[in-house]
Amino acid sequence: MNIASLKNNIKTKRSLLCVGLDTDVEKIPEFLKTEFENPVLEFNKRIINATKDYTVAYKINTAFYEAEGSNGWYNLEETIKLIPKDCFIIADAKRADIGNTSEMYARAFFQKLKADAVTVAPYMGKDSVTPFLNYPDKWVILLALTSNKGSQDFQYLKLENQQITLYQQVITISKEWGSQNNMMFVVGATHPDEIESIRKIVPDHFLLVPGVGSQGGDLESILKKGLNENYGLLINVSRAIIYASDKKDFESAAYIKAKEYRDIMSKFIQ
Amino acid sequence: MNIASLKNNIKTKRSLLCVGLDTDVEKIPEFLKTEFENPVLEFNKRIINATKDYTVAYKINTAFYEAEGSNGWYNLEETIKLIPKDCFIIADAKRADIGNTSEMYARAFFQKLKADAVTVAPYMGKDSVTPFLNYPDKWVILLALTSNKGSQDFQYLKLENQQITLYQQVITISKEWGSQNNMMFVVGATHPDEIESIRKIVPDHFLLVPGVGSQGGDLESILKKGLNENYGLLINVSRAIIYASDKKDFESAAYIKAKEYRDIMSKFIQ
Repeated sequence: MNIASLKNNIKTKRSLLCVGLDTDVEKIPEFLKTEFENPVLEFNKRIINATKDYTVAYKINTAFYEAEGSNGWYNLEETIKLIPKDCFIIADAKRADIGNTSEMYARAFFQKLKADAVTVAPYMGKDSVTPFLNYPDKWVILLALTSNKGSQDFQYLKLENQQITLYQQVITISKEWGSQNNMMFVVGATHPDEIESIRKIVPDHFLLVPGVGSQGGDLESILKKGLNENYGLLINVSRAIIYASDKKDFESAAYIKAKEYRDIMSKFIQ
Repeated sequence: MNIASLKNNIKTKRSLLCVGLDTDVEKIPEFLKTEFENPVLEFNKRIINATKDYTVAYKINTAFYEAEGSNGWYNLEETIKLIPKDCFIIADAKRADIGNTSEMYARAFFQKLKADAVTVAPYMGKDSVTPFLNYPDKWVILLALTSNKGSQDFQYLKLENQQITLYQQVITISKEWGSQNNMMFVVGATHPDEIESIRKIVPDHFLLVPGVGSQGGDLESILKKGLNENYGLLINVSRAIIYASDKKDFESAAYIKAKEYRDIMSKFIQ
């Protein structure tokens, strides 16, 4: 998907919402497990249908599928087929390896799974990232400042003679590897103040913002500090929407939650 | 597998060799594709049989399997079942995510696939790594100084007031999260001089050393600088062994190459 289609969908739906399909078979409603042969796929189908009117992107967390082995990977493939064509599909895989291996990951996520974007880890540098940038209308979403506590361990390290931290250097260097048309950055909603400094480095890029919802990030604060002329934000919510209820009403509960988030977002979208 | 069993196998085979099963269907001998229904699995079976006498570990690069979708993940599962019980099994997956997601990756690789170790990326910090350390006799192999050109981009960044680089800080901080009994570090064979400085930080840990073979790292230099009282090295070779020939003789060619590497190693093992 290109940036024009993404922006158009944001404008039409007045939403920046990305729903994270972190589907854990142990957390889905019990009745699905007794009534359906493939409860994970049934759950995903219903969550997608319940949320799609307010959602511009779906983010599929590969870990939750790999935990079920090859059957889980099959569910990953089938889930992507259920996502409406107007939605942006993110494989949240946090991959990256030496060049010939990143080429295989790009093939896995872009050619085989047909995702629009894949999350990529920066530690191995340029030749581990650029193989993902060779596909037209496909995107790298590079980890910059993550939402978890462990983001303190290395991402905030100050660099010698540069007055900046590692995560700022990662953004500064890597933005030259692609453009605002094929790269985004992950910035956790748990760091609203840092979003302002990040906007000085990448004023025009999209940021994928996880950490709203169960992780406690403040949505309005992120919107005020992160929006740009391209909209420039995809706000991910996973558990707070997909597990809003573990009963028969989980679809309407997910719908209501998705609408709540979208209604806050729509106030900020012209 | 615990460290005693690993050391015992190294001593018995007089080898530190890890064979990397980066199996690309486009590179395996043509006759396998016409004669066998599942040429990748047949190739892996034969490579394992041809190399097992000189090999103490097999490293399976997940990218090459994911590129074939759920069928590829099935081949990953079946390949692990073919590896002899005395060999250490590394899932070269370069994973890491927020805590609840790393837990799912640990489940995928340790419980479901039954690998002994998984390669983990450090950028997201402690809570992205420790879920992998909660399994007895299972290992984290953390990326420290990788073999690729992109290792220059961030891993060598000098940190303020510390006189050390990012990769040294990664090792210094992360070694406290586990012990020499459940953590190793990835250090590319393309950086022999840095191995000496790394040995000052982690004198007792095992290092997984990729980059010998196609990537050009010097084996003898690595052995001289990296061995410790635990042996402390697993030396990975992938393409130079598994693609030693693309003809009918690929098994004997792989055997000969594995023996060549092992014969150099055995001179350094008491």
